[in-house]
Amino acid sequence: MGALSVAISVFFVLRLVRVDAGSGKMKEIATYIKEGSDAFLKEEAKIMVVATAFLAALIFFAVGWQNAVSFLAGSLSSALAGYVGLEVSLRANVRTATMALKGGIKPAFSTAYQGGKVMGFFVVGIGLLGIGALYAAFQDPLDMVGYMFGASLMSLLLRVGGGIYTKGADIGSDLVGKVEAGIPEDDPRNPGVIADNVGDNVGDCVGMGADLFETYAVTLITAMLLGYLVKGGTAFEAIPLYVAGGSVIAMLVGSFFVVPSGSRVMNAFYKGLTASALLALVIDYFLVGHFAGLYFAILIGTLVLMAMYAFAEYFTSYEFRPVRRVAERSQTGAALNIITGMANGLKSTVFPVIAVATAVLAVFILNGGLTSSIGNGVYAIAISAVAMMSLVGMVISIDTFGPITDNAGGIAEMAGLPSSVRENVTDVLDSVGNTTKATTKAYAIASAALASLSLFAGFELELPKSMLSQLLVYNPLVLVGMFIGGVVPFAFTALLMDGVGVAAFGIVNEIRRQFKIKGIAEGEVKPDYAACVDITTRVALRELALPALIAAGTPVVVGFVLGPLGLSGYMFGAIVTGFPLAIWMTTGGGAWDNAKKYVESGVYGGKNSEAHKAAVIGDTVGDATKDTAGPAVNPFIKVMVTVSVLFAPIIVLVHLL
Amino acid sequence: MGALSVAISVFFVLRLVRVDAGSGKMKEIATYIKEGSDAFLKEEAKIMVVATAFLAALIFFAVGWQNAVSFLAGSLSSALAGYVGLEVSLRANVRTATMALKGGIKPAFSTAYQGGKVMGFFVVGIGLLGIGALYAAFQDPLDMVGYMFGASLMSLLLRVGGGIYTKGADIGSDLVGKVEAGIPEDDPRNPGVIADNVGDNVGDCVGMGADLFETYAVTLITAMLLGYLVKGGTAFEAIPLYVAGGSVIAMLVGSFFVVPSGSRVMNAFYKGLTASALLALVIDYFLVGHFAGLYFAILIGTLVLMAMYAFAEYFTSYEFRPVRRVAERSQTGAALNIITGMANGLKSTVFPVIAVATAVLAVFILNGGLTSSIGNGVYAIAISAVAMMSLVGMVISIDTFGPITDNAGGIAEMAGLPSSVRENVTDVLDSVGNTTKATTKAYAIASAALASLSLFAGFELELPKSMLSQLLVYNPLVLVGMFIGGVVPFAFTALLMDGVGVAAFGIVNEIRRQFKIKGIAEGEVKPDYAACVDITTRVALRELALPALIAAGTPVVVGFVLGPLGLSGYMFGAIVTGFPLAIWMTTGGGAWDNAKKYVESGVYGGKNSEAHKAAVIGDTVGDATKDTAGPAVNPFIKVMVTVSVLFAPIIVLVHLL
Repeated sequence: MGALSVAISVFFVLRLVRVDAGSGKMKEIATYIKEGSDAFLKEEAKIMVVATAFLAALIFFAVGWQNAVSFLAGSLSSALAGYVGLEVSLRANVRTATMALKGGIKPAFSTAYQGGKVMGFFVVGIGLLGIGALYAAFQDPLDMVGYMFGASLMSLLLRVGGGIYTKGADIGSDLVGKVEAGIPEDDPRNPGVIADNVGDNVGDCVGMGADLFETYAVTLITAMLLGYLVKGGTAFEAIPLYVAGGSVIAMLVGSFFVVPSGSRVMNAFYKGLTASALLALVIDYFLVGHFAGLYFAILIGTLVLMAMYAFAEYFTSYEFRPVRRVAERSQTGAALNIITGMANGLKSTVFPVIAVATAVLAVFILNGGLTSSIGNGVYAIAISAVAMMSLVGMVISIDTFGPITDNAGGIAEMAGLPSSVRENVTDVLDSVGNTTKATTKAYAIASAALASLSLFAGFELELPKSMLSQLLVYNPLVLVGMFIGGVVPFAFTALLMDGVGVAAFGIVNEIRRQFKIKGIAEGEVKPDYAACVDITTRVALRELALPALIAAGTPVVVGFVLGPLGLSGYMFGAIVTGFPLAIWMTTGGGAWDNAKKYVESGVYGGKNSEAHKAAVIGDTVGDATKDTAGPAVNPFIKVMVTVSVLFAPIIVLVHLL
Repeated sequence: MGALSVAISVFFVLRLVRVDAGSGKMKEIATYIKEGSDAFLKEEAKIMVVATAFLAALIFFAVGWQNAVSFLAGSLSSALAGYVGLEVSLRANVRTATMALKGGIKPAFSTAYQGGKVMGFFVVGIGLLGIGALYAAFQDPLDMVGYMFGASLMSLLLRVGGGIYTKGADIGSDLVGKVEAGIPEDDPRNPGVIADNVGDNVGDCVGMGADLFETYAVTLITAMLLGYLVKGGTAFEAIPLYVAGGSVIAMLVGSFFVVPSGSRVMNAFYKGLTASALLALVIDYFLVGHFAGLYFAILIGTLVLMAMYAFAEYFTSYEFRPVRRVAERSQTGAALNIITGMANGLKSTVFPVIAVATAVLAVFILNGGLTSSIGNGVYAIAISAVAMMSLVGMVISIDTFGPITDNAGGIAEMAGLPSSVRENVTDVLDSVGNTTKATTKAYAIASAALASLSLFAGFELELPKSMLSQLLVYNPLVLVGMFIGGVVPFAFTALLMDGVGVAAFGIVNEIRRQFKIKGIAEGEVKPDYAACVDITTRVALRELALPALIAAGTPVVVGFVLGPLGLSGYMFGAIVTGFPLAIWMTTGGGAWDNAKKYVESGVYGGKNSEAHKAAVIGDTVGDATKDTAGPAVNPFIKVMVTVSVLFAPIIVLVHLL
């Protein structure tokens, strides 16, 4: 199934590259973007090679060679997923722009979606192949914990680095270009324009690709691990792979249902997703229908997936009240836009958390009841998460669509295509992109919560029995661990927001400096794009270290000081605060973005009105929350939990308190 | 000691009212403010009488008459603390303004601080008297749980109602007055000016008075309760009262050390606080020195108090880097001001949480070790919290100083006093007020975390033994409870932010309407102040219901559905997320406010520069987070925990899962 999925992916690549890549000017711009991306990724790769080599050696000596191999495989696959995402997107961008010019909305849509499909099937394929190969080689899920750690750490690095890069460049360029100099977004006179477009690629495409790959891999391996630890039968270890494999077929069929018709582009995606989900449920019935409890878990996982889409669309699409209220308040200036948007984001956390909590409760009740022991229930939770993640290919296709159309719009602007291309085609598609981005992130973090919960149980199962009965919420070590764990996501998101601030501030000063040079603002002298690319590259890589260290290092420190009990509390505290924090930041940000788009659609004075200026400020704040800080929480939590599971055996032996 | 404290308070009142209350014009304005405050409080009181009567009846039938009486006593005392705060502040405002005019900074400082002392000693006195009387009557701390619930519920209502009122009025008036019409703050031509000043009183004074009273009462009774439940000796029930009583003497002496000298007004407060703390430690040594563990707990509690002051000052004073960075970024517009400010606030959560966690760990280690049983350790934690809260009188004196000087500035402006009064005296004192406000809130929430932890242990002790051993973090009910509890503070703060948005939006529209009437903007026609007062009153009272219902209702619902295990998880989840959320909002807000003040001091172009406009937007956002949403988290958590303890016996008997 993994091979099939990769094959499908290759097929779509071949179809994609046959599409016309456009004029010389467009190709030139695409080349600039590619060069900038490559430069950044090369620098990033250097750091990663060092970090990965160091950690692989550490794992080799502390845990064993199997996990060291798994770790390297996981890191590599995650990086590959990100890199392919980038390459596909770079090719799809320019072709989508060309199609938007030549054929209008329908061919542009199908080209962009083509790109998304390549990515979706590739991520699923590489995941299934890697996990399948390791399982065939080691026959023991405990040896595959390293794969999870590698995948999530790589994804974290790509998310954080790319996230700071993309939003630093984006915000910096907009603040001087759009707001101060009054030139349009993506105008070639803006010295930050290439950095901005590079950012879209290294942030949205690479980051999201690695992130969803990691979530997919962690979810699958966690379920296999629990199949081994809890159920103790190879049949149960294999079920996650069957379910994931079945969904490849389901998604292949489902993807034919994605046909835009009528005015709501979003509906096309819903049709495809629903078709895939229903077909997957049918296939799963034949695979695991004889375990009624597990089948219900799959059903519940699928329902959570749908619920996340529905709620995220409600809170981020301007067809509904929350975004409209943010837009309405913008009439009184930026302050009430921000206050209302913050309230909106905070409010949006309630439904996902309640949905996940209810799902957990229901799965437990249907799988052995609400006993305190770690047993059938947690395995079923893991299977729920697998059901949810097995459709990730579809989710990725829908999601990648967003940055591709966004970038296509950028290329259209920079290449001087007629403004109708942007207004009638790419902007329309892009506003859908804002919603799909938010839905994907809600989906990713919700499934991450389920997967982390199960993985957490995997950690507990590595502890001696006598310790398990001490994992009481009122145990001082658990208490203290939980407090500390609870605050860590705050610290982590703070560092990311701060990184964006630093990068953007640097870009602003650089662009202001260049605009003082005669001719640049007038478009007569070519700006020094590379200077801006350098700044964001430097800042992004510098600001990468501390968040990564917190993610991978603190669990080890907490484990050695507070022991396994403290570490358990720590992990749980981080999940409890990280989940709503991530939802708040991503959904809130999506709402700010679309509130601006709503004003641009002509209400409250439309573009360039006071309301619009206020909405732009909210949108900018949302950029940092939704594209940098919020989505990084997902790999962040996963790194913390996987590193804990990996080092659990040593921590059990050696700890201070 | 309670009577002594009240007597001290009355003494300072008498000294305060002897101070000259100023000219006819100033008295007239003070009268307007008083009328508006009274009107709001009258409406609020109606709702509270109904709610209190209903709950008292419920407690009477469900729990017993003793707790019903305690509940009424607690509600009444809390309301009284708030009301006295208001009355004192109303009298101190105008006198401070007069002294600022007549004598400059020193007499103005001492008048404002005089008002603060009245409030501080009154809160402590009324708390000690009420708790002492109930203890004398019932001889059983379990009968005093109602007092805690009453005090915290009343404080929650006053905080939420007052918070939405004050910031709705403040933001609304500023947005049209200062930003659009370009007239100064507190200008009498602004139709919202009276509502704004009323808000300062009903929000900052009433809210903070009731809030700190509630924290004081809950901390003391919790310690007494654990003395009873854990230690089972009347000596241990009485220790909290001794410690609190000893601190009354310490504060009386310490207050003489508050003498402004040199340029840093803040230093005067530090001297007074340090003197009180040291003296209290000496007194406590004679009281409980023979219990070494407990004495260390007191020492640690005092250190936490000092640490909270230090960290909050670092993050909110413009003498340090965090605030300066926010100000620096404002040069690029509001977006980076908000992003940097958010990052700043998120970052500021780390230190308080780590400090509290370390303190908890240390207290446990020094009092019976890190066992999983609920024993000496939690009692010692409660005593730590008592030590921290016993100095609340000092903290209140310092805190009340802020709104008094703020309001004095308002009166100076409205009464047309020379601008030097504002610039050289009240503004200088007020900027210190921003920092003291943030320090008080950090102190309140940190001590609330300690008190809630202990109270949580009190809840566990009401459960049957068999259930205690099931309170495992991986128990499904605990897990689910924790997830739900973790998201509730997000929902709660969202509603409060939203309430501010609604109120401010209403005020903006009303002021815009009035400014269209000829003569109002020119100062020839007296604006309709009452219309704005009406809007904020209506919105604040309407938006009060849902947050209060969530606080008091959800624990009961969760308890009945998920049972005591789920409810335990729920409480703990709420503490884990509520604590950092509150710190983030209050400290972040204080930093935004002082970043604006820093720009106003002349850097980055000073007043009316682009940087200043950006900083004003950040400040406005911070208003909603630091004066409405953030501080309300403290009583919110307390209401949830006390209602759980109160209804624990019934929940143990009746629950669904």
